[in-house]
Amino acid sequence: MSRLFRPAPTFMDAPAATSAAGSRAVIIGMPFDCGTHPVRIGSRQGPAAIREQSALLRPWDPLTDRNPLLDLNVVDLGDAVVTPSAIESSFAGIEAAVWHAVDAGAVPVTMGGDGAVTLPQLRALHRKFPDLCVVHIDAHTDAYPIDGYNTATTFSRAVEEGVLDPARSFHVGARGPTMVPGVFAHAEALGYGLVTMDRLMADGAEAVFARLRERIGGRPVYLCFDMDFFDPAAAPGVCTPTWGGASAREGLDILRRCADFRLVACDINTVSPPHDVGGMTAFLAATVLWNCLAMIAERERRPNSR
Amino acid sequence: MSRLFRPAPTFMDAPAATSAAGSRAVIIGMPFDCGTHPVRIGSRQGPAAIREQSALLRPWDPLTDRNPLLDLNVVDLGDAVVTPSAIESSFAGIEAAVWHAVDAGAVPVTMGGDGAVTLPQLRALHRKFPDLCVVHIDAHTDAYPIDGYNTATTFSRAVEEGVLDPARSFHVGARGPTMVPGVFAHAEALGYGLVTMDRLMADGAEAVFARLRERIGGRPVYLCFDMDFFDPAAAPGVCTPTWGGASAREGLDILRRCADFRLVACDINTVSPPHDVGGMTAFLAATVLWNCLAMIAERERRPNSR
Amino acid sequence: MSRLFRPAPTFMDAPAATSAAGSRAVIIGMPFDCGTHPVRIGSRQGPAAIREQSALLRPWDPLTDRNPLLDLNVVDLGDAVVTPSAIESSFAGIEAAVWHAVDAGAVPVTMGGDGAVTLPQLRALHRKFPDLCVVHIDAHTDAYPIDGYNTATTFSRAVEEGVLDPARSFHVGARGPTMVPGVFAHAEALGYGLVTMDRLMADGAEAVFARLRERIGGRPVYLCFDMDFFDPAAAPGVCTPTWGGASAREGLDILRRCADFRLVACDINTVSPPHDVGGMTAFLAATVLWNCLAMIAERERRPNSR
Amino acid sequence: MSRLFRPAPTFMDAPAATSAAGSRAVIIGMPFDCGTHPVRIGSRQGPAAIREQSALLRPWDPLTDRNPLLDLNVVDLGDAVVTPSAIESSFAGIEAAVWHAVDAGAVPVTMGGDGAVTLPQLRALHRKFPDLCVVHIDAHTDAYPIDGYNTATTFSRAVEEGVLDPARSFHVGARGPTMVPGVFAHAEALGYGLVTMDRLMADGAEAVFARLRERIGGRPVYLCFDMDFFDPAAAPGVCTPTWGGASAREGLDILRRCADFRLVACDINTVSPPHDVGGMTAFLAATVLWNCLAMIAERERRPNSR
Amino acid sequence: MSRLFRPAPTFMDAPAATSAAGSRAVIIGMPFDCGTHPVRIGSRQGPAAIREQSALLRPWDPLTDRNPLLDLNVVDLGDAVVTPSAIESSFAGIEAAVWHAVDAGAVPVTMGGDGAVTLPQLRALHRKFPDLCVVHIDAHTDAYPIDGYNTATTFSRAVEEGVLDPARSFHVGARGPTMVPGVFAHAEALGYGLVTMDRLMADGAEAVFARLRERIGGRPVYLCFDMDFFDPAAAPGVCTPTWGGASAREGLDILRRCADFRLVACDINTVSPPHDVGGMTAFLAATVLWNCLAMIAERERRPNSR
Amino acid sequence: MSRLFRPAPTFMDAPAATSAAGSRAVIIGMPFDCGTHPVRIGSRQGPAAIREQSALLRPWDPLTDRNPLLDLNVVDLGDAVVTPSAIESSFAGIEAAVWHAVDAGAVPVTMGGDGAVTLPQLRALHRKFPDLCVVHIDAHTDAYPIDGYNTATTFSRAVEEGVLDPARSFHVGARGPTMVPGVFAHAEALGYGLVTMDRLMADGAEAVFARLRERIGGRPVYLCFDMDFFDPAAAPGVCTPTWGGASAREGLDILRRCADFRLVACDINTVSPPHDVGGMTAFLAATVLWNCLAMIAERERRPNSR
Repeated sequence: MSRLFRPAPTFMDAPAATSAAGSRAVIIGMPFDCGTHPVRIGSRQGPAAIREQSALLRPWDPLTDRNPLLDLNVVDLGDAVVTPSAIESSFAGIEAAVWHAVDAGAVPVTMGGDGAVTLPQLRALHRKFPDLCVVHIDAHTDAYPIDGYNTATTFSRAVEEGVLDPARSFHVGARGPTMVPGVFAHAEALGYGLVTMDRLMADGAEAVFARLRERIGGRPVYLCFDMDFFDPAAAPGVCTPTWGGASAREGLDILRRCADFRLVACDINTVSPPHDVGGMTAFLAATVLWNCLAMIAERERRPNSR
Repeated sequence: MSRLFRPAPTFMDAPAATSAAGSRAVIIGMPFDCGTHPVRIGSRQGPAAIREQSALLRPWDPLTDRNPLLDLNVVDLGDAVVTPSAIESSFAGIEAAVWHAVDAGAVPVTMGGDGAVTLPQLRALHRKFPDLCVVHIDAHTDAYPIDGYNTATTFSRAVEEGVLDPARSFHVGARGPTMVPGVFAHAEALGYGLVTMDRLMADGAEAVFARLRERIGGRPVYLCFDMDFFDPAAAPGVCTPTWGGASAREGLDILRRCADFRLVACDINTVSPPHDVGGMTAFLAATVLWNCLAMIAERERRPNSR
Repeated sequence: MSRLFRPAPTFMDAPAATSAAGSRAVIIGMPFDCGTHPVRIGSRQGPAAIREQSALLRPWDPLTDRNPLLDLNVVDLGDAVVTPSAIESSFAGIEAAVWHAVDAGAVPVTMGGDGAVTLPQLRALHRKFPDLCVVHIDAHTDAYPIDGYNTATTFSRAVEEGVLDPARSFHVGARGPTMVPGVFAHAEALGYGLVTMDRLMADGAEAVFARLRERIGGRPVYLCFDMDFFDPAAAPGVCTPTWGGASAREGLDILRRCADFRLVACDINTVSPPHDVGGMTAFLAATVLWNCLAMIAERERRPNSR
Repeated sequence: MSRLFRPAPTFMDAPAATSAAGSRAVIIGMPFDCGTHPVRIGSRQGPAAIREQSALLRPWDPLTDRNPLLDLNVVDLGDAVVTPSAIESSFAGIEAAVWHAVDAGAVPVTMGGDGAVTLPQLRALHRKFPDLCVVHIDAHTDAYPIDGYNTATTFSRAVEEGVLDPARSFHVGARGPTMVPGVFAHAEALGYGLVTMDRLMADGAEAVFARLRERIGGRPVYLCFDMDFFDPAAAPGVCTPTWGGASAREGLDILRRCADFRLVACDINTVSPPHDVGGMTAFLAATVLWNCLAMIAERERRPNSR
Repeated sequence: MSRLFRPAPTFMDAPAATSAAGSRAVIIGMPFDCGTHPVRIGSRQGPAAIREQSALLRPWDPLTDRNPLLDLNVVDLGDAVVTPSAIESSFAGIEAAVWHAVDAGAVPVTMGGDGAVTLPQLRALHRKFPDLCVVHIDAHTDAYPIDGYNTATTFSRAVEEGVLDPARSFHVGARGPTMVPGVFAHAEALGYGLVTMDRLMADGAEAVFARLRERIGGRPVYLCFDMDFFDPAAAPGVCTPTWGGASAREGLDILRRCADFRLVACDINTVSPPHDVGGMTAFLAATVLWNCLAMIAERERRPNSR
Repeated sequence: MSRLFRPAPTFMDAPAATSAAGSRAVIIGMPFDCGTHPVRIGSRQGPAAIREQSALLRPWDPLTDRNPLLDLNVVDLGDAVVTPSAIESSFAGIEAAVWHAVDAGAVPVTMGGDGAVTLPQLRALHRKFPDLCVVHIDAHTDAYPIDGYNTATTFSRAVEEGVLDPARSFHVGARGPTMVPGVFAHAEALGYGLVTMDRLMADGAEAVFARLRERIGGRPVYLCFDMDFFDPAAAPGVCTPTWGGASAREGLDILRRCADFRLVACDINTVSPPHDVGGMTAFLAATVLWNCLAMIAERERRPNSR
């Protein structure tokens, strides 16, 4: 007998589930924005907006005629349990949710939320992958020489906590003026590789990612993709918009260059619906998520991929 | 152990459920709008918008210090299974969903959707309550002298199908010009009582509802509340806005006069989010739903109420 | 043979025409806003917005089962020929357009445009009706003790030009603070009757309009209806919004009290689409126009009405 | 010589100043919203929006031909110095700013900000007026039986701190469901008078305010006016919208009944621009401020008024 | 004598007309959207929006100092007669309108409407040009391996009906995931040439269009330009937005490469105003139309061009 | 003692001042738009919007670790004193404000306003720098072969008045159709260098600016940057949007190529907030201003730079 009721919308109509068991990749929302500069609060609504806009997306890749949601048995687990303005318990909730997925053998594909949601995810991933590397694609380094837990210090704290390998981790796409001096120097002092937007455009994505692949090899990669890597013309609804970013085509092309990495987590963040225009940033984020799933599925299909 | 994931939002955070068993009232969405005049399509998004805006509502009645959601063990069943532009199968899905609730002994409190969603609900209710009466609060009679199944003919077809008792059913609030002549005469020819907006204001709500109560008595009442009863200044996001309606305070006051009826179903419809302004119509509809729940709960608390 | 092409939208789909001959009432747009305070320019787009929103209106009056557009053979003549910032030639264009209608024996029903479009219309009407009276329903008197031609001085200039009979003309609905002192005193010094909003509400519309009817009798009446008579909650998209106005129901009720006047022109103005919200002010203005047509048609149907 | 530069906009173009000396009333903004429920943050932008919208207001009262801004020598002092999320230092900044005005003999007319900005203002006023009474016009009592400093507890804490006389202070306009039970009982247990919206409408504003005047007499009155007293149809851009409130005309009429009180402070709060529609709530708030100034000026003109 | 009334706006103020006689190119609107996926209905409003936004366009080409509207004696015929949800009669109305233009020797330049409006236009063109070729610039092939008449099957049905020469017709710009598998293979199986967006960017527009010109030669070309070829950052208001498209500059450059074709029809479609942002998609579509007119005029000026 | 009140917002929180004395660069707003085509009035609100959006900007350049606002002691002088629709007195006010800055030895960095604000600024600059050259980056030449003072004739009048050296002045970025023929020829006939957008893209910015530097050398340069140089996808809120412009990254890159010029004035104009989307054009303009300040500061730091 057919069902009587239609449940609430999920990402691309993936089945809702409460467990990652049996899935190769899972969707988790991170509705938290208390690490954001107070003039642009709102990314807590990001996961709901991405789910809504994902109704515009189609699942099949016309080049491979594969559907990554089916191939990976993707389920949508809902949102991590967080509390606005209670950063400690929220971080615990995020880490627990992501650890559940990682522990079950699934790749967590998460939707933010502001950039602060990354640190607890790194903690969860590092428990399973002690040699965790990060490819951080963002207009900002998020490794500022300041104190505290917020969107600007995720990768400063991550080095201090030892939850990633900075020598094999990279910030790609930094651009625009900063709140304090010394930002670039600090990221490099922490051991990170730094590829500014100017450098990325001058050298070309192909050359840059070849260098990254050479350095990272087959190590497990946490892909942290901040939507403000895109130019505000394509993605106005972010926490810290910065002009001079990638067009959608450029950004998706650069994203797809991560296909050669061994992706163990994808973290797409900083969609802020109150600052969005017609849902376009959320829709672009949904497109980024689908591409992440497609990359994970492609690697699964290769012989000896795991 | 506390839960790891937070599920999708429900109406006022009521528990999501797939069965009405054990509840005295249940929430069901009716995401269907193919009975609407094509220039204002969009009420299929009504249930989602009402759920979203219901986050602004508080549950406790300060006059009685009761919480109707707790008193009635309200659950949110999700949406009926409908298909845009397939009116027959959609009507079947709506009737099945509502019958499930009625059959379980719960009062269905439904959120439209355009006014066409009412007919299949009447069919379900009439199966259990052969002496069903309707109080229809709306800027339009929806009993037009024309053919077909759409928002303008719900109560024409309902009489033909015999799913209500027109002699004890009333259209309250009709106003504004109509698409064809003969509209008021037809409603009365079908046997309905007609209380135009002008009449309601001239006689006063107290006198009008006293007449209705006298006529209906303790018979089972299907409350059909079209959000366009409110003036567009309060509820712009409806399918067929008509100036000269009730203010929010007037409309809520009139609604609460239904507390003396034996409500067996509440059907709040025609929220069209694409035409709404800042979600205010959806928020007002959520307020109407809460008041319906409060009225049902109040009657439950009275001795010998059922 | 059926037509191949559908022309551009007109008011309520009335036939487009280039002559008023044969019509008892005609629609004319007045896309001019250079008499407006410069922070709220935009009413030049008013006629187009009213035409667009009129698609939401229905033509039949359910109380009389008459269609005033058919009864009056209403046509839409398009817009008067005006040039932004060229007030003299624009006034000439407005007067010529309105005179064409008046000369053909039709009642011009015009859509502004800011309040400055009224003066040239009065000039045209006065040529035919030397005993012209004005009922001016507006939050402002537009009879300020200042110089020049703009929205605030229409009725100061009109007395100076002798195009109306101030002793039988009335400003109804004035409220709110003013730009200069002495505004109310000046209107009365010019000979006008003044009914402030406070007075209208205190005495009641019935008593107020009885006084007006007693004074005006069967003389020809120019109805000048400024949409800012409505409260901004109902009509936000006006040139000079002022809180404390009529609700839509109150305003339409007051409007309909003009049915006893011998209406020779109806001038509905100050819809400013850039300041509107979801087209609601334009839609309310369209409703006002339909009611004007209904009143004209009703009078036509009475014995010895002309 | 005329000035070369035009400074930033102030409330109704009142002179900007850094001292209240020589003014009988002063404007101060309170750009703080960290006491607000996190789904509707944004009232920190309230003062800027009210200043912007005040450009639509005119200064002269046509009934008295007086200009209260000139009569009172009103200046705009800018905003109190607050820090989002640092409630203690923000409260200190608010109290200091208001004390400056009070100490200089001026009536502070302040623009919020959320309802939490009231407590530090009461502290400042109470230093000068030990017999301070409050007339609190609001959809909520803000005297909830819960802990902490936020918009819901201002008047709970105020009684505990002894900064007002609850026996001569009143909550006017409470309506709608509440987050916890026991809200009305708690306000009364604290000693306040409570006039719900239902009571206000049933008894009429004239009778209600006569009772208040009888009780308060010539004591100093702090007028706390929460914009959510208005219905969301008139004031959508507030922190906690609640349907069933006053229309603009009703609300302004009720406000003007405070003219007989000895107003020593006016606090207009909870304008939240991100949730506003076309600036209408901010414009209505500006209208409320002008009316407060007009009432203060009227009292000044009466013999023996101080 | 100068005219008294200004008619409704046309495309770039071209003369309104009811016949194509005497024009070398004509504008026709196609206000139909019932072939569109139901979540993005609205392109029926496309023609009106394009006409409105065309007021921002200027007519003279500064490089040639020619005005194509004057050179071609362009008139605006209004809209084809269609009925929402009645696809058969609508297709007949579209074919009749376009045939009228073709039969009169004019190039129809049409504005959609969704992509379904293309099939009846092809039928009309094919009656006159049996060797009709199509250059289809679109993010989608619209040649899906599914049944029915809708936006996804236009070019599947066109081959079956034999109204174009697939071997000399091309889909340019396909990108993004698809609803079903096998989409690209099906287009090629039908005989079409396929140039994906990736291929277009990799090979360059110059090389790609050289191949097309070589294949098509002087045969009559139907240019079908779907606005979703542009990236959603430039054209958000389309029926099926897909990230990764052309920027405005890229897209206009590619469009202008059609100047060497013998254009016998230009069909610009899928502007959906309810999903647009500030009218920018409609304005970009108007720019595309002007460029089509400029290309047609240029070819007319060449010796032996017809 | 810390301050009690926070003054109105300035550009990037620079100190407000009434004199340029002691500053190397100053911010001045030009809230004037009466030179604009009447369908897009609104740039008078540009300066306020840019100040508001500048709150999103950060001050430190991460490549040099310098803060140009501190290095140049930038102050915000407020707005020049202008009167809408009074072009002569407004031009006098603009010239006086700019002369004040120039006379004090500061570089005026001004925010429009429409393109008409440039002419009086050129007059002021020319008084101090008789060999003034202009680099005009704009989608239009603003040197049209027509009469009068408006946005289209600034550089026609400037040559006639002799306030710049056309032989060493350049229009960069012209594109799109024009209102009249002969536009490009006229600019060249006046003596200007013309670099169309097509030419700029074909030759590359590096080559083009090398030619400009060769021609201009160390002469004083007035940089006139019209925001419509950007594509409407990045900058929708301008007076005369024209598709095919620079992306934000391209535009900022081209802007920064002016670092080698001796900039004596920067004039960023045509931000029209009513036509903007989410403030993005104003935010991009703020970014352009910051880059201008950074270029000025860089030159100051070079040995022998002045």
